[in-house]
Amino acid sequence: MSASRFKFSVQATDGKARTGRISMLRGEIRTPAFMPVGTAATVKAMKPEAVRATGADIILGNTYHLMLRPGAERVARLGGLHSFMNWPRPILTDSGGYQVMSLSDLRKLTEEGVEFRSHLDGSKHMLTPERSMEIQRLLGSDIVMAFDECPRADQPRDEIARSMELSMRWAQRSRAGFDAGEEYASRAALFGIQQGGLDEDLRRTSAQKLGDIGFDGYAVGGLAVGEGQEAMFAALDFAPAMLPADKPRYLMGVGKPDDLVGAVERGIDMFDCVLPTRSGRNGQAFTWAGPLNLRNAHHAEEAGPLCPRCTCPTCASYSRAYLHHLVRSGEILGAMLLTEHNLSFYQQLMQAMRDAIGEGRLAAFATDFRRDYFRGRG
Amino acid sequence: MSASRFKFSVQATDGKARTGRISMLRGEIRTPAFMPVGTAATVKAMKPEAVRATGADIILGNTYHLMLRPGAERVARLGGLHSFMNWPRPILTDSGGYQVMSLSDLRKLTEEGVEFRSHLDGSKHMLTPERSMEIQRLLGSDIVMAFDECPRADQPRDEIARSMELSMRWAQRSRAGFDAGEEYASRAALFGIQQGGLDEDLRRTSAQKLGDIGFDGYAVGGLAVGEGQEAMFAALDFAPAMLPADKPRYLMGVGKPDDLVGAVERGIDMFDCVLPTRSGRNGQAFTWAGPLNLRNAHHAEEAGPLCPRCTCPTCASYSRAYLHHLVRSGEILGAMLLTEHNLSFYQQLMQAMRDAIGEGRLAAFATDFRRDYFRGRG
Repeated sequence: MSASRFKFSVQATDGKARTGRISMLRGEIRTPAFMPVGTAATVKAMKPEAVRATGADIILGNTYHLMLRPGAERVARLGGLHSFMNWPRPILTDSGGYQVMSLSDLRKLTEEGVEFRSHLDGSKHMLTPERSMEIQRLLGSDIVMAFDECPRADQPRDEIARSMELSMRWAQRSRAGFDAGEEYASRAALFGIQQGGLDEDLRRTSAQKLGDIGFDGYAVGGLAVGEGQEAMFAALDFAPAMLPADKPRYLMGVGKPDDLVGAVERGIDMFDCVLPTRSGRNGQAFTWAGPLNLRNAHHAEEAGPLCPRCTCPTCASYSRAYLHHLVRSGEILGAMLLTEHNLSFYQQLMQAMRDAIGEGRLAAFATDFRRDYFRGRG
Repeated sequence: MSASRFKFSVQATDGKARTGRISMLRGEIRTPAFMPVGTAATVKAMKPEAVRATGADIILGNTYHLMLRPGAERVARLGGLHSFMNWPRPILTDSGGYQVMSLSDLRKLTEEGVEFRSHLDGSKHMLTPERSMEIQRLLGSDIVMAFDECPRADQPRDEIARSMELSMRWAQRSRAGFDAGEEYASRAALFGIQQGGLDEDLRRTSAQKLGDIGFDGYAVGGLAVGEGQEAMFAALDFAPAMLPADKPRYLMGVGKPDDLVGAVERGIDMFDCVLPTRSGRNGQAFTWAGPLNLRNAHHAEEAGPLCPRCTCPTCASYSRAYLHHLVRSGEILGAMLLTEHNLSFYQQLMQAMRDAIGEGRLAAFATDFRRDYFRGRG
């Protein structure tokens, strides 16, 4: 690992929260960072230059989806994921471990890995730590995630412990598999994933094992899987602090705007979530005054924008009445404009938190945020 | 009618073809012009600034769709169609006459107009020449179309004649209804619509009656309704020349790229068609080498662009392989990028024809176009 290809510098702290930046070959990532999800080599309903214009420094791609369609070897033959989808900046890819368990058919889990059938065509595949590293290398990922098993939050402690131990053995194999791609390993970064559910001891064991292996960054995995915000925050009260302070901490699959604020307060530096994009396609907008459902009839003649404080192109040029019309009519432009707004809002929220941390006023920011956000729902 | 609000000037002719421009309060329209269709207050899958960037000077809105959803009175209360959909340039609206016959349920045609039920919710409505003029005024249309009946091409001559005579009485009522909105009539333009099917005598009668009433422009209606290109061209060999040479001639609902070239050669100045937008959502691209179906497996690893001669953003940044992947995956971005390409290609074709007419080489251009376009299909 050379320092130049991946460098994380904390510029300011405020309580447990930090703001800083990750420097990588393909660009800088301002933290705390929100990564839009580009599952199938596209952030749905957005052109990549528009994704960048929202303020995104990095996007996420899904190994499970891309290995099945168009296929990792095909993407490699076409010059890699960045060129394929016209996004020249950093890309983080997940390992496929989570989605193979949630989306595929007929899974069989062994020490070796996971055998499964594609949800697209029933074809048979095998994912192992080594194959996951190979796929992420073929895609040309900038931040590679270790292959892990992500159990449901409601499993018994024995099962959570067994799963965490397996994930730690897989983390070791992921490290070895990643390092075997020498030239590629000199350009990309590898993150380990802490498991252990809601159990403080298991989380500590997991963090120690990952730290012994050594990674460029560390994810808090196994949260946002149905346990609820209160339980998630309780785990985040202790889990991030167990991870090396000089490396970025990534909370996978989170979340709602209020989840992001609470997690940043607890020391998280990176996030990804489908919520702003998926909600945008379903007629839901996030605003500083809470979420809005554009399908509701009371928007039909509202001449004002989604959110008066928002600086996005949708809020600059379109009324709620027009967006209501597009959503009711099933128009693609409705999905486009609401996705653009939601991604912009998320990035404006991240920038506001970075500014607040830099100025030592995150607690006041968070109080104001929650007051406005939940009042809007009343 | 004042000359300043609507002025058509022919700058060059080449055989029967003409190139020129229409000057209106909201902007200039270069002719021959292709108007993208924005049925429900959106050119589907395109932001309006991107529609403009393809080279479109004017778009079309559909009275039938807009009167049902969101409703003409609602659009008026929200400031008119231009502001509602964020398109500040000219908009032509059709009269609703064609679509009420093709889309609505339980139609009843009388001398007064057409009574029908909405295809959306079954609600009962009445369209008359007077109501069509009122709706187009409420929308704030720049070019208003007279209300007509558009019979199928396979009707007996007696039926075509009866229908044409009715449309001419409705044209007179449309003129009166339009002129009754005095302030609005001083800003907008009204086009009459020639009918008469494929019959030369009926077309002549229709043109004479329209000319006696007097309009700002004249559409050739009742074509592109299933008669085939050969029959359409045969009618275009005589129909446009019957209309006043100093006014624009608009061929409604046409067409494929080769239809446009043949119709421009026969003296048509304006077109609209859903083909480039609808095809874009269905995985089809138009190119100088003919149409392409991006769904086909042989595109899966093609690293080149849709069309090497095209200057659009899609061809600048994306491979056929990527577009194939998006189309196969049902991704919204596939519809967005193919629609943008198709609209750009149509505008590049119109610009090429305007240039060719200006330089007196349209016949050679058309020969080259057909050679390349149909060779691509072989």
